[in-house]
Amino acid sequence: MESMSFILFGATGDLAKRKIFPALFNLYMDKKLPASFSVVGVGKESLSNEEFQAIVIDSLYEFSRHSTDDKLQKIAFVQQLSYIRLDLYKEGSYQALFTHVERVESEKNIQENRIFYLSVAPELFDVITTNIKKSRLGETTGWKRVIIEKPFGHDLQSARKLNNVVQQAFSEEEIFRIDHYLGKPMVQNLETLISANPILQSIWSKDMISNVQITANETVGVGSRAAYYEQTGAIRDMVQNHMLQLVMMTAVRMSERGQAETLRKEKIHLMKSIQIDTQMDVVRGQYSPLAVYEDSVIKGYREEIGVDPFSTTDTFIAARLSIQIPLWQGVPFFIRTGKRLNKKETKIVVEFKNSLSSSENTKDAEPNLLIIHINPDDGVSLKLNSKHPLTGELEPIKINFSASHREIPEAYEYLLADAIKGDPSYFTHWDEVELAWQLIEPIIKDFENNQVPLRLYQAGSTGPEAANQFVNKYGFQWW
Amino acid sequence: MESMSFILFGATGDLAKRKIFPALFNLYMDKKLPASFSVVGVGKESLSNEEFQAIVIDSLYEFSRHSTDDKLQKIAFVQQLSYIRLDLYKEGSYQALFTHVERVESEKNIQENRIFYLSVAPELFDVITTNIKKSRLGETTGWKRVIIEKPFGHDLQSARKLNNVVQQAFSEEEIFRIDHYLGKPMVQNLETLISANPILQSIWSKDMISNVQITANETVGVGSRAAYYEQTGAIRDMVQNHMLQLVMMTAVRMSERGQAETLRKEKIHLMKSIQIDTQMDVVRGQYSPLAVYEDSVIKGYREEIGVDPFSTTDTFIAARLSIQIPLWQGVPFFIRTGKRLNKKETKIVVEFKNSLSSSENTKDAEPNLLIIHINPDDGVSLKLNSKHPLTGELEPIKINFSASHREIPEAYEYLLADAIKGDPSYFTHWDEVELAWQLIEPIIKDFENNQVPLRLYQAGSTGPEAANQFVNKYGFQWW
Repeated sequence: MESMSFILFGATGDLAKRKIFPALFNLYMDKKLPASFSVVGVGKESLSNEEFQAIVIDSLYEFSRHSTDDKLQKIAFVQQLSYIRLDLYKEGSYQALFTHVERVESEKNIQENRIFYLSVAPELFDVITTNIKKSRLGETTGWKRVIIEKPFGHDLQSARKLNNVVQQAFSEEEIFRIDHYLGKPMVQNLETLISANPILQSIWSKDMISNVQITANETVGVGSRAAYYEQTGAIRDMVQNHMLQLVMMTAVRMSERGQAETLRKEKIHLMKSIQIDTQMDVVRGQYSPLAVYEDSVIKGYREEIGVDPFSTTDTFIAARLSIQIPLWQGVPFFIRTGKRLNKKETKIVVEFKNSLSSSENTKDAEPNLLIIHINPDDGVSLKLNSKHPLTGELEPIKINFSASHREIPEAYEYLLADAIKGDPSYFTHWDEVELAWQLIEPIIKDFENNQVPLRLYQAGSTGPEAANQFVNKYGFQWW
Repeated sequence: MESMSFILFGATGDLAKRKIFPALFNLYMDKKLPASFSVVGVGKESLSNEEFQAIVIDSLYEFSRHSTDDKLQKIAFVQQLSYIRLDLYKEGSYQALFTHVERVESEKNIQENRIFYLSVAPELFDVITTNIKKSRLGETTGWKRVIIEKPFGHDLQSARKLNNVVQQAFSEEEIFRIDHYLGKPMVQNLETLISANPILQSIWSKDMISNVQITANETVGVGSRAAYYEQTGAIRDMVQNHMLQLVMMTAVRMSERGQAETLRKEKIHLMKSIQIDTQMDVVRGQYSPLAVYEDSVIKGYREEIGVDPFSTTDTFIAARLSIQIPLWQGVPFFIRTGKRLNKKETKIVVEFKNSLSSSENTKDAEPNLLIIHINPDDGVSLKLNSKHPLTGELEPIKINFSASHREIPEAYEYLLADAIKGDPSYFTHWDEVELAWQLIEPIIKDFENNQVPLRLYQAGSTGPEAANQFVNKYGFQWW
């Protein structure tokens, strides 16, 4: 691995503390960082290197899966960290940063390979990338890369504007857009599962599959993010990015999964082929209060602090996507995501057709399911029909593998490791972002014009009844 | 269900105590016996009805899965039991039995439906069935059935002789030959598993399956059965019956599984199509001693009490069967069974072909396996390849369903229930017995003439090394 500098904007923020430093440390422990590297934290607080390192050590104890390991290794790791306080709006700042980075590079004999991680509000992308370009930070003799987090815009127009800004300083190949769902271990395992198992490969076709259901349900409410969430809703917060990415990763042609360059092309081809009928096939929901006891209530969305009491923001979306390519002809993809539901669960359920001759023996057979459990457990399970040993009746059994007892890397570890290697497979290409907005915008418009009824659902329930009716209409049920 | 009498010869024997009475009681508890029934125990001991009932109650406490249930139900059950002491070689005895059975039938208003269970040495079959015929026991206005246990002869000739005797008194449709492996819940579930699951059905073909491996391993030695075992060996004790039955139940054409009459025909067709090359494809083994500590030894077979110190009796058999029908063209069936092995285990392993394109991603893929666990655990598992979350390397994972936590009926319950219903599906037809002997006899001859080397294997091992080499020769390994 080539030596490199990792320049983190927003180094004192929450994401840095919870995800980025623990991920970097875990990579360090697993020997997945270059022998020679430097992490430069950039923030607005005044901190000495030592104070910064102390903060990071604390975060490792709290959030790293190597939290119980030897303290010496944490110290060795944070000694590669330095800190610089910058006013990001001031041009001169970037000169100071450049000087700092160059000095560390020279001290530690690090080549001019630089990753800029913008863990900051998107309003800052413009000024930061412009100044990276203006200062000599971006003129490296090695490579440079920028990692950015969602939201990639608020709509098609703002996304394009944001992208134009970033692309002034970085080429598309240098931009690594994080969708952390693509870093989840089971999403990264999807390709292997299908391609390395003849028996799964042989059933992975529209001839065998009746429909695919992708669920990403949360039990939490909007919490303290009301100001942000009021502007986004589930459609922007979950569907435009994560849900569509899961659809694409499930639907992508087997032979294209392994190769980064063709994977991207194939995903873009898929995105172009997705159709959603907003009037028919989108259910919009919002959670309403649940009285627990006489004096205890789980708030409805409209009662949350910072939410408009007449808000029509969607906290739940269910939809049917049809992918208009021969590979998936006639196989609907259902998606479902929401807050304040009865169960926290992200999973992909592949339902197989009932191709059985309708004999006495099989008339009560339930559909076979292949379930990819993504969160909170990692695992694979298969639902089969078996004969009940006492009654002789058919009963569904679930055979499963769960990896949850093991120490599983976090999404950010995979993604940072890939960014450091320069592998874009599990990052979002601009074309995907743009196409996703194009797909979602008509739905957002229909929401704004109240063309899609807002279905209230009780907090803690399985979502609006309309979400069930709508899959039933197609002869299916949510699993 | 029609009322009936169950006349048990050998009512004070070990099988009766351990299996037959507990099975009958469990069927009683599960409402699978007719409302009106009588069990007549026949034995050589002098016992009153009450003494006999007390012995049976004890056996229920010890061996029934309903052992903790209400004592009153055990009492109600054994009140349907009576006992008669008979000298089975004396003709007059059977007249006494007839009188006894008829009196109970009349008292309890039971129709003349009679099941005779011959839980006695096969030498007695002749005299018992002859006298059933001679006395008026066998002349019923209802139906009559006879249940017999293995061994069904010692070779083809003796089997034919035994069969002729039994068929003097009972027609083939009235003879229920028990092979208790056919009563094991997972063997009875095989048909459902394949026929009620589209995804298993679609991979259940010679195009997908590379080979089938059927294992029935024991950890125990010959125990107190040396006198019997010296005359039989694993080839007669296990292969001629249980192993061949498991092969047939696995190989039988899907569409024939459900129908008793065609199932039998298809099994006979299969048996006729099985070929074994004794010289090439049979491994004969015998366990040798294992020194555990200086002064503690697990005996070798030849050191067991009652065994000839120069015995060449086989305690282990491995073999390759080829089934010469289009359905299984090119798919070898391997069988393996033995005593004093490292693990007690009966299972059917279906190994799938590696149909993957040999990409970087899949080069270390292990074969997919579908495993039917028959004993000691009941279950189904599937071996898949997954990506190790830390190293990214392929690793095999096993997804499984085990029913072992549940209360599973014993083989005898299924088989007795079927015999009472008159369903012959899971019993052995005479033609199967005859064909099995025809298949096995040349092997036995080769053993006797020492044409097949006797491979010693250490007690507690996985069997003779030759058993591994022989599957390796075909490019496979035992799972």
